Amino acid sequence: MKQVLAELITIGDEILYGQIVDTNTQWMSVELGKVGIKVIRKTTLGDVESEILKGFAEAESRADIILITGGLGPTSDDLTKPCMAKYFNCEIKLHEEALAELTAFFKSRGRELSDTNKLQAYLPACCTKITNSLGTAPGMWFEKNARLPEGQGKVFMSMPGVPYEMKRMMTDHVIPRLKAKYKLPVIAHQVIRTVGIGESVIADKIMDWEKSLPPHIRLAYLPSIGEVRLRLTGIGEDEKKLKTEIEGLSQKLIPLVGEYIYGYGEEPLEVAVGKLLREKGLTLSIAESCTGGYLSHLITSVPGSSQYFLGSMIPYDYQIKMRQLGVRPEVLEQYGAVSEPTIIEMANIVRAKFNTDVGVATSGIAGPGGATPEKPVGLVWIAYSDKHHTVTKKLQLSTDRLLNIQAASVAVLNLIRTSLPQ
Amino acid sequence: MKQVLAELITIGDEILYGQIVDTNTQWMSVELGKVGIKVIRKTTLGDVESEILKGFAEAESRADIILITGGLGPTSDDLTKPCMAKYFNCEIKLHEEALAELTAFFKSRGRELSDTNKLQAYLPACCTKITNSLGTAPGMWFEKNARLPEGQGKVFMSMPGVPYEMKRMMTDHVIPRLKAKYKLPVIAHQVIRTVGIGESVIADKIMDWEKSLPPHIRLAYLPSIGEVRLRLTGIGEDEKKLKTEIEGLSQKLIPLVGEYIYGYGEEPLEVAVGKLLREKGLTLSIAESCTGGYLSHLITSVPGSSQYFLGSMIPYDYQIKMRQLGVRPEVLEQYGAVSEPTIIEMANIVRAKFNTDVGVATSGIAGPGGATPEKPVGLVWIAYSDKHHTVTKKLQLSTDRLLNIQAASVAVLNLIRTSLPQ
Repeated sequence: MKQVLAELITIGDEILYGQIVDTNTQWMSVELGKVGIKVIRKTTLGDVESEILKGFAEAESRADIILITGGLGPTSDDLTKPCMAKYFNCEIKLHEEALAELTAFFKSRGRELSDTNKLQAYLPACCTKITNSLGTAPGMWFEKNARLPEGQGKVFMSMPGVPYEMKRMMTDHVIPRLKAKYKLPVIAHQVIRTVGIGESVIADKIMDWEKSLPPHIRLAYLPSIGEVRLRLTGIGEDEKKLKTEIEGLSQKLIPLVGEYIYGYGEEPLEVAVGKLLREKGLTLSIAESCTGGYLSHLITSVPGSSQYFLGSMIPYDYQIKMRQLGVRPEVLEQYGAVSEPTIIEMANIVRAKFNTDVGVATSGIAGPGGATPEKPVGLVWIAYSDKHHTVTKKLQLSTDRLLNIQAASVAVLNLIRTSLPQ
Repeated sequence: MKQVLAELITIGDEILYGQIVDTNTQWMSVELGKVGIKVIRKTTLGDVESEILKGFAEAESRADIILITGGLGPTSDDLTKPCMAKYFNCEIKLHEEALAELTAFFKSRGRELSDTNKLQAYLPACCTKITNSLGTAPGMWFEKNARLPEGQGKVFMSMPGVPYEMKRMMTDHVIPRLKAKYKLPVIAHQVIRTVGIGESVIADKIMDWEKSLPPHIRLAYLPSIGEVRLRLTGIGEDEKKLKTEIEGLSQKLIPLVGEYIYGYGEEPLEVAVGKLLREKGLTLSIAESCTGGYLSHLITSVPGSSQYFLGSMIPYDYQIKMRQLGVRPEVLEQYGAVSEPTIIEMANIVRAKFNTDVGVATSGIAGPGGATPEKPVGLVWIAYSDKHHTVTKKLQLSTDRLLNIQAASVAVLNLIRTSLPQ
């Protein structure tokens, strides 16, 4: 089977000049890899017509699929659309369906369609319009030599550079269309999600298992804040057989690092914790100080979280910790806001006040200010409370404010996971 | 003056397959831009010799300077060094000075130099070694046609992919060498940050101004959720003159779209709002429902925010809105949680309870669930309250939960900015 090759082209001076970091192509590479399409090159081009046209031709000479992001706005520095029309030698015309969608999009937001925005409904006549359900610039799908046998034609696909618009378009339209058009090998993935263990520690624990992997199955370590995902990728021709093999290998990890595994696949920790709460019929409240809302945001980023999450208090100020949350002044005065006695009070009080089954709390020095010799930046206390027990944990994180906020929030999610009644 | 052009090449399957995000080239672009070197293309290539050699030749045909990162490790999948030797047709030899540096590097960490690591001291004979003060792989500087007049020769520079090693090498060695070799122009940037106005509406309002820009100054629109940044980039020879010119053009935007401009340069909206609160000596509290903690997170992501932010309540559940926050049951029952009367109560009550100068609130249908025929997904009410007045705003956002949370939070920040007492 011929391998299907893709190139990714990002268009925009803002990326070339470093005003923004391109995160789109990383996500796209992963999604294409999942369906067996191999990315062989990524190119970023500026807002210059001749460069864009040359880039298209070069990519076409190497790859089957050319995925383009960016340069689709309605303003004069956005050149992707005119370049595509020129490259495919067809004129730009008003697309009635695109206009109807655009008008509806603006109407749903209570806004009038401006003349500049109306330009978004003009598309090269030779493309297939792809709906952008989250924005105003439609995607454009072009085929070259579409009448050739399966897998021999080329596809150019232009998408907006706005990440959430591009992702939705890839997931809902582009990937399904590519799967329908090309004969792709069978690729099977399994992602094993762990939390509370570092990359090198996990590597030591699973070393023998890793060495025993067959050559057609590869392992990758994907670390993020507080977490390490292990991704197994297998390539083959018999989907069922490959999946069974990967599933078997994945099972063998349970005796080695099972206590750190919170889930599989795409489900993040906040979803896994939400499921546990829902399954057990328990409700949650939060008193978060140093995490400043981020922990509640993680919890509430999950659709349906209102079924188990009732509310939070963010007692950022010392006075608010006493007067609004109700931490006893003598505890705060004797031990300070960042201490085990205070964090225990915070978790217990929020649980009682909000009348929930579980209460959790955070208090720490996020930095860069606020440190003392005894309480350095990165010191965070977290606590879990239910009717059976109260569990606390002391963390010593980094010197980076945002990293501390994120890592402490992940640590609380893991504390909930490991402390809930069985 | 001939403009000096650079291309950036990143080598490594881990970037091509999406295992890591390339942040190096963004930083490099900014640093090169500061000294007047224009990046015209970025390319990511896999660990394949033929692809790398082709990529070098293509880049050389377009640019004066080719900066390469990655593929310098001591393992067999690291191909940059053999490819450079092949491309420049010279053999790889032990470099005595590199070996001495490498030995010292390991010694300073109390480690022995292994045979694998010793390979790092072998370099192509035709390159100039560039010291890597933070790691083991030296940089390699190659010149082509070095005897040609100034600015006509080409430079190839290979650096490690580890970000902090690359950054130190660029700052200490590469940028100074490039400045010495080429005659470079002056580049100046100005970023004007707007909020509360769409890209196309702003484009309509500043159309005449945009058309009047001189050819050596370019405008770019950089949209993100709820915001649009306008970037002016000028190129010239006299730095002071160019900066004055750009500043003058930037000033002319004030009568056109001044009410939407919240700042300049790199400072995000949450920092600008924090500064306003601090300057006016005002404190803030938040009652956020549909935004679920994200608004508080934005505010508290700013170092020093504890000076003006006292705390939040997240009354996610209906009962918590009444019992903990204190919204009157008759208001909730008559108008519902997502309504103007309720949002006014929420903002006023949190301000009174938390004893702050300003109180803000959010309540809406983030989605995907919770909608009714009268209250669709994306409907959000926000409110601002201080002792002078209460301001409300009804938003109709998208169908995407996370986007609604983010857009509503940005809208509140803008409501604070525009509603604070003068």
